[in-house]
Amino acid sequence: MTVRMDAVGNIFGRVEGTDSDAPVVAAGSHIDTVPTGGNFDGSVGVIGAMCAIQRIMAKGKTKNPMEVWVFAGHESSRFGFAHLGSRCICGFTEIDKWKNLKDTTGKTVPEVLANRGLHFDQIAGCKRDASKIKSFAELHIEQGPILEDGNLNVGIVTDIAAPIRLSIKVKGTAAHSGTTPMRSRHDALVAAANIVLAVRQRANAEASKGIVGTVGYMSVKPGAMNIVPGDVEMWVDVRGNDFDLVSSVIDNIKADAQSAAEAEGVKVEINTISSSHPVHLSDELIKLSEDACKEQKIPYTFMIGGGGHDSQEIGQIIPTVVLHIPCLKGVSHTPEEFASIDDIMVGIDALTGLLEKLAR
Amino acid sequence: MTVRMDAVGNIFGRVEGTDSDAPVVAAGSHIDTVPTGGNFDGSVGVIGAMCAIQRIMAKGKTKNPMEVWVFAGHESSRFGFAHLGSRCICGFTEIDKWKNLKDTTGKTVPEVLANRGLHFDQIAGCKRDASKIKSFAELHIEQGPILEDGNLNVGIVTDIAAPIRLSIKVKGTAAHSGTTPMRSRHDALVAAANIVLAVRQRANAEASKGIVGTVGYMSVKPGAMNIVPGDVEMWVDVRGNDFDLVSSVIDNIKADAQSAAEAEGVKVEINTISSSHPVHLSDELIKLSEDACKEQKIPYTFMIGGGGHDSQEIGQIIPTVVLHIPCLKGVSHTPEEFASIDDIMVGIDALTGLLEKLAR
Repeated sequence: MTVRMDAVGNIFGRVEGTDSDAPVVAAGSHIDTVPTGGNFDGSVGVIGAMCAIQRIMAKGKTKNPMEVWVFAGHESSRFGFAHLGSRCICGFTEIDKWKNLKDTTGKTVPEVLANRGLHFDQIAGCKRDASKIKSFAELHIEQGPILEDGNLNVGIVTDIAAPIRLSIKVKGTAAHSGTTPMRSRHDALVAAANIVLAVRQRANAEASKGIVGTVGYMSVKPGAMNIVPGDVEMWVDVRGNDFDLVSSVIDNIKADAQSAAEAEGVKVEINTISSSHPVHLSDELIKLSEDACKEQKIPYTFMIGGGGHDSQEIGQIIPTVVLHIPCLKGVSHTPEEFASIDDIMVGIDALTGLLEKLAR
Repeated sequence: MTVRMDAVGNIFGRVEGTDSDAPVVAAGSHIDTVPTGGNFDGSVGVIGAMCAIQRIMAKGKTKNPMEVWVFAGHESSRFGFAHLGSRCICGFTEIDKWKNLKDTTGKTVPEVLANRGLHFDQIAGCKRDASKIKSFAELHIEQGPILEDGNLNVGIVTDIAAPIRLSIKVKGTAAHSGTTPMRSRHDALVAAANIVLAVRQRANAEASKGIVGTVGYMSVKPGAMNIVPGDVEMWVDVRGNDFDLVSSVIDNIKADAQSAAEAEGVKVEINTISSSHPVHLSDELIKLSEDACKEQKIPYTFMIGGGGHDSQEIGQIIPTVVLHIPCLKGVSHTPEEFASIDDIMVGIDALTGLLEKLAR
């Protein structure tokens, strides 16, 4: 395999086929994860792609070249936006917006890339020519309970849900916690607490339609025992596979945030960090994946993908499919995240069958 | 003035009197403040004591020796407990408890003292012999709106309200924010938000009886856009001048926290960080302070002290009084904190008159 890294840190491993003009059959995933995350999210799809391609090549060269793609900056944990690497491959860059975002330590995206010997000023050059790529397939743990509960091995993802994400800054008045009468307070944390509960309530109200809503990050300042909080920043993540429904939940949350602020006599500044549309994946690859499972008698189902996958970017320019495998109790993004080697190997069997059909 | 520092960092400046056996007339305050605090909280009482003693000595030696006391570690911001220095002077130490407390950077009290060349293992030796101290007086900004609203110059504090403080740790289940259905969540932040609102509601219910309640510190972990929060720690501060009422508010908040945890399927661990009793100050010094104000035609009133003062420790072993001066809009513990030089000087006039009566 010949291996290269692009300016944003995506890694590409390539094996040539018998027809050097044939379009690339690609598979892969990411290797970064969240703070205190697990060991299977992403990595399964990278190792799985390498393993599948190795098996296929062992039977002789394919017609099409094959590539393993390892996406950089998949998670949104650090900068509040996801899929840095895959968006660069697709040309979905927001250079002016990205270059000013800071992580909680104050470092910007260009600074963090430079520290890795990468080049933010060259990310426009990371775009791949879609006409030279035949397909992309991503093997990934489900990060949910459906396959385990159904005793199934493969979930063929037909659509990927997508989040709209907000940053909400609450600006109150810091004051002495002992001498400031309750009636004179403008407590940023009290308003923020009401916003957290509003996110929960608005998401619960649409949960039956697949909506989930979360406040995952909150900072409270000055943050001392004896000071009424003056500033709170929080991040809101709302997802579903119906963009209009997600948008209306977000609109309700914005209105709730304004009401909570007025009730406490504080100000809120709401910014949309990201707004992505759900993506329908390739019907042809979905069908070929089903064939691969049937031929190998692998128990499978069709499902909606709730987690963010780089495939929701790639799927907009290249025929793409995601194959989910079960993970223990559907738990992910924690150290308890687990997928058995047996389940992983069955997933790789399905991926191998799919890539054979595409590349042979 | 001869100056010395003790093992915990308290500073004592002393001028001798004509009678070397006469008990000490002391005055002072603290010079530390809270994160993003103001320039007047504490400092006014230290500079005021130096200025008053200088004026008195200018008229000739007094009978009693006089001392300026500068207390170390007054604020609770860093370790969640207040009055480190004054409690050592009184012998109110909790060495085993203090030595294990960590600040948010993980440093312990002994480590922080050692970094300043001080000696935690010697703090028992900081205790002063109360029989050799005649009185202590603390000049301090009110940190509240009463004097400014009443157009008064001096508030003679008769009682100091005291806080009961809790650390509440909420332990939920960190999980993927996109693939964890709303019904399967155990979100530590949702439970914490309900606790914040319970503290506000319980304090509001008793606000007419002088109760204030605050959640000033909260940390949310892992703290990422796409992770349901698994752990939250928060600090609760409830104050009043009626210990039984403060205790009952605290009990209600503990019960509310348990209910909030059960509703979300999370666990709470509640620890009492500190529990101090309101302190009634010296009737004799209150009377002498009133005399000093009357003689100088200084507009004064009697009041309850809502803020924590080292005088609430000292007042338990030595006759003590606190004199408040107005501060702008009653705002304190913020950079906007302000007291005019004119108001400060009138406060020093009152303090000077009081110390004259005690030491001459």
